[in-house]
Amino acid sequence: MSPIELNKRQEEILQIVKNNGPITGEQIADRLSLTRATLRPDLAILTMAGFLDARPRVGYFYAGKKSAQALGDTMNNMKVKDFQSMPVVVRESVSVYDAICQMFLEDVGTLFVVDEQSLLVGVLSRKDLLRTSIGRQELNQIPVHIIMTRMPNITTCKKSESLIEVSRRLIEQQIDAVPVVAEEPAGLRVTGRITKTTITRAFLSLSESHEL
Amino acid sequence: MSPIELNKRQEEILQIVKNNGPITGEQIADRLSLTRATLRPDLAILTMAGFLDARPRVGYFYAGKKSAQALGDTMNNMKVKDFQSMPVVVRESVSVYDAICQMFLEDVGTLFVVDEQSLLVGVLSRKDLLRTSIGRQELNQIPVHIIMTRMPNITTCKKSESLIEVSRRLIEQQIDAVPVVAEEPAGLRVTGRITKTTITRAFLSLSESHEL
Repeated sequence: MSPIELNKRQEEILQIVKNNGPITGEQIADRLSLTRATLRPDLAILTMAGFLDARPRVGYFYAGKKSAQALGDTMNNMKVKDFQSMPVVVRESVSVYDAICQMFLEDVGTLFVVDEQSLLVGVLSRKDLLRTSIGRQELNQIPVHIIMTRMPNITTCKKSESLIEVSRRLIEQQIDAVPVVAEEPAGLRVTGRITKTTITRAFLSLSESHEL
Repeated sequence: MSPIELNKRQEEILQIVKNNGPITGEQIADRLSLTRATLRPDLAILTMAGFLDARPRVGYFYAGKKSAQALGDTMNNMKVKDFQSMPVVVRESVSVYDAICQMFLEDVGTLFVVDEQSLLVGVLSRKDLLRTSIGRQELNQIPVHIIMTRMPNITTCKKSESLIEVSRRLIEQQIDAVPVVAEEPAGLRVTGRITKTTITRAFLSLSESHEL
């Protein structure tokens, strides 16, 4: 195996933990003036690669530089919860026009549609919206629930699943994004999103943590 | 390192080469009733991982099961030419309406725009087309060269580059796809495309060739 080479931010995190451990993710984020969410992939990679140990309710310890972990182990340990982004949702009553505006405002490729209880009822892709927008209809007059993909035809994932599993679903179902959901008695609550951008980022972070 | 475990198709390829090598990629594809393009990622992975040796103008040999290669080596050896898809192009004079139809017909997220000599002059994303389609203009009347991203603002890649490099470009430039180009005296000829779907597929094939 080649020795692991870390990117600049991962080196900084390692220095902070060496000098200040045990230290929580929030405290590391504060010192770097970044959000906890931004650091999550780096912390996951450092922990998986054996540089850091994490203990619940205590924080991160420096574990010393072990030999690189097998690729299979590393990839199986890349979990949805460590790489997911915030979901962008709209209500089922909004118009197609407003949904398109929301998509540009948030700069996302997929919107999740929720009911009054904030439970998942549909998905809208850029492709769905483009198809509707070239029709001869008034986009202000069509509510999104007319054109969205509905349950049970929506592919979802859970935060404990591996990115490999979700990648397989994106490819097999030919979709660009899936909502991360939590099962509740009344339905599925949307808690995050995984997209092909997430997977591209993960591919890149994998190469950066194992650079030649 | 965990031992490499191959997916079903990779095992089939290995058996064919064991029994019939030296054998060309085309011949392997024929025996599996698949296209050469479909097999390319599997052949690349098998060669990179050391199961197969390839000799130009002769074909593939069985090389025996070596120990797994380092992740860094494997990822650096994942080249654009082994994973690229066919480009979908339109002329700069076609209307926005026709470009949208072409996008649905070919089921792609990005079109490359070429001039009369088939050289790259622009890129059209689903986002560009959606933005235009909610305007009050007649989509039949607007040629795509009015709304496309133009040279020199187009991010491209070459077939000899690594997927890691291209992933970095997709993330940093916040784009979904890049054209694979060949430099010619008169400009850039479009020979392929790499998208976030390509990278998601590559992530998946990487995990399949190194499964636990």
